[in-house]
Amino acid sequence: MTTQEMLEVAKAVKSSVCTLTEKERNDALLAMAKSLEDNTENILIANEMDVSKAKGKVSDVMIDRLLLNEDRIKGMAEGIRAVAKLPDPLTSEISRFTREDGLSIRKISVPMGVVAIIYESRPNVTSDAAALCFKSGNVCVLRGGKEAFASAQAIVSALKEGLKKSGVTEYAINLVTDTSRESANQLMTATGYVDLLIPRGGKGLISACVENAKVPCIQTGTGICHIYVDKYADIKKAVKIIKNAKTSRPSVCNAQEVLVVHRDIAQEFLPVIKKELQENSEHKVELRLDKEAIEIIDGTPAGEEDFDTEFLDYILAVKVTEDISKAIEHISAHSTGHSDGIITENKENAEIFVKLIDSAAVYVNASTRFTDGGEFGLGCEMGISTQKLHARGPMGLSEITTYKYVVEGNGHIR
Amino acid sequence: MTTQEMLEVAKAVKSSVCTLTEKERNDALLAMAKSLEDNTENILIANEMDVSKAKGKVSDVMIDRLLLNEDRIKGMAEGIRAVAKLPDPLTSEISRFTREDGLSIRKISVPMGVVAIIYESRPNVTSDAAALCFKSGNVCVLRGGKEAFASAQAIVSALKEGLKKSGVTEYAINLVTDTSRESANQLMTATGYVDLLIPRGGKGLISACVENAKVPCIQTGTGICHIYVDKYADIKKAVKIIKNAKTSRPSVCNAQEVLVVHRDIAQEFLPVIKKELQENSEHKVELRLDKEAIEIIDGTPAGEEDFDTEFLDYILAVKVTEDISKAIEHISAHSTGHSDGIITENKENAEIFVKLIDSAAVYVNASTRFTDGGEFGLGCEMGISTQKLHARGPMGLSEITTYKYVVEGNGHIR
Repeated sequence: MTTQEMLEVAKAVKSSVCTLTEKERNDALLAMAKSLEDNTENILIANEMDVSKAKGKVSDVMIDRLLLNEDRIKGMAEGIRAVAKLPDPLTSEISRFTREDGLSIRKISVPMGVVAIIYESRPNVTSDAAALCFKSGNVCVLRGGKEAFASAQAIVSALKEGLKKSGVTEYAINLVTDTSRESANQLMTATGYVDLLIPRGGKGLISACVENAKVPCIQTGTGICHIYVDKYADIKKAVKIIKNAKTSRPSVCNAQEVLVVHRDIAQEFLPVIKKELQENSEHKVELRLDKEAIEIIDGTPAGEEDFDTEFLDYILAVKVTEDISKAIEHISAHSTGHSDGIITENKENAEIFVKLIDSAAVYVNASTRFTDGGEFGLGCEMGISTQKLHARGPMGLSEITTYKYVVEGNGHIR
Repeated sequence: MTTQEMLEVAKAVKSSVCTLTEKERNDALLAMAKSLEDNTENILIANEMDVSKAKGKVSDVMIDRLLLNEDRIKGMAEGIRAVAKLPDPLTSEISRFTREDGLSIRKISVPMGVVAIIYESRPNVTSDAAALCFKSGNVCVLRGGKEAFASAQAIVSALKEGLKKSGVTEYAINLVTDTSRESANQLMTATGYVDLLIPRGGKGLISACVENAKVPCIQTGTGICHIYVDKYADIKKAVKIIKNAKTSRPSVCNAQEVLVVHRDIAQEFLPVIKKELQENSEHKVELRLDKEAIEIIDGTPAGEEDFDTEFLDYILAVKVTEDISKAIEHISAHSTGHSDGIITENKENAEIFVKLIDSAAVYVNASTRFTDGGEFGLGCEMGISTQKLHARGPMGLSEITTYKYVVEGNGHIR
């Protein structure tokens, strides 16, 4: 099937998917989970093909992301079962307004329709995204990375088997077989077919979408996250939080990339944090220091681009500012709008920071690593939006739905 | 000031506008209303210039839209006072989640930032849009039609005077002075400056935005609205509703453009509706009939394009379908997703229609003319969104805000 044919099919089955009851959707999810486990062997064979092709071409971290085993497949199935247990995002009557003339106006939540997702090479994203889209009554068109294509195909084939066993059209879940850049562009410009496009990937993919997408799109995942250590910071808290934000999992989008320090505390604080991130850390963190910081501690001199880079690595850019206003100014100019925080015991400064930092999540005295659907209590996550339109921050089930108004009268005219 | 300079200024004052308290914003709105009335004379002189330039070039309807008088200016001021009285869209704590570890996660509503609006030549849109943006803590960049430019400039100058008297930066409200197509394109591509673009205008403007916009954009206002008369319709209700939907104000986006009729009721219904829309109507409605309809009543044979045209005039395209499924199929293929309705006494058919029609407002036994912020109880309107992302249907104050998460801890790490 070409990508265009797949889009036609996806559009055609929208109405049969959006009319499934909550029970029908949840039963099908359970069948999908079972089918995934039943097909463990096929999936592992396909995954082995992907892994052996990728070896030598990509980093060990990438290989580990790509690799499946029995436990990971079980984990994917459990993930689908957890989605089945989540509250239905479609039943809610968001609001109801009955006018004096008796006309009833209900606002109800409904699926987006066809949700397209362009993502990288982690096989579990395939089952996660498919489950979340299906749970919310959407038809999904998945376009994964070529490195994980065989795995994704085996996973989708198992999921489709689960759908068919439940009497649901297998075309509720679709995997694009063309993994060239062309198919990504096709999805970005499929006006009238794709109701929502979610690109999950690096800076290149996101900016390609901003530049080229003609369909509604939600940018996700690029995180140049800042933590500002205020003059009134509790240094112990600051050290603990920054070590966690920088080193607990540097490859993810909510990891810290930039440390901003108030001048009046820099002399005392910078040597302490340097020691913690280098001598007391399992992985030594490289510090890229601005002019003022490098006069206080040793490190690599920072270039301008270091303050606009998502390192996703054991690297931290450090900047000293003369006050909180300058810190906010720097963060506003360089943040990607994902997660930024302040460490301070001064309530007023915390309030100013929260008010003026225009990011999806603004932190006071806590690690930016919490920005995550699960941690925020959404029960799941479809990506982390860094835009302001429609969804901001971690996206759960309701963020891939929309609403409509149902107006019921008895011959009412205006 | 060039458009680019204006965008720089708008971005620079965002933080001072978003930190105004509710009282400061409402007081400034009242001062803006007063200043508008105080400047009645200036505004009327400017308006006279616009009107005399436009005469002979545009239709009488357009001239009437353009024309201001003392009463209309008073109405605009009253409109601003009404906006001041609306509930604050910014104070709400949308939700709060306190984790077991004590970390508090609050979801709060915040302004979008800079809202750009491209609109037509109605002068009142200038004050309406400025007031709604300001009330919701947004900085606005207005780009009106060139026919109303002098009026818009006089209005904005009065509004700025009101802002200044209240000690608020006059750059909270900005009017683009370049009314060429170039400035519209500049707004569409002002990534990093425009947080939300709302085009309010005809099909050409909307599709230019879909094609070219790189900033977040909400499509508004194109309405090819359908009413389907089911086999089980109450003919009296149908006649009353369609006459209202087609003739009460044909120039607006929620007016009906297409009538779809079930074959089994067409013989009886079409002659009745024809009489009502032609003999019993102040303005005779031209009927553009498909093959089956033209065998029952007289009228103009419909071309294919008649089912994809927003007439905004006393013209109605008529199609006969063999059943409700074919009716839904036709509407799904030709609707702009604005407002579509069914006339039926059959509950099941009403439910199917409501479930399957993917439009902002779906009607049962009522006129599509109700799709309007005021009628829907929002208290105001920033346009009617025909997209599914972010806002759908009539947009009020909360639709021009976004949200962010505020995460407060005490040294919390993950």
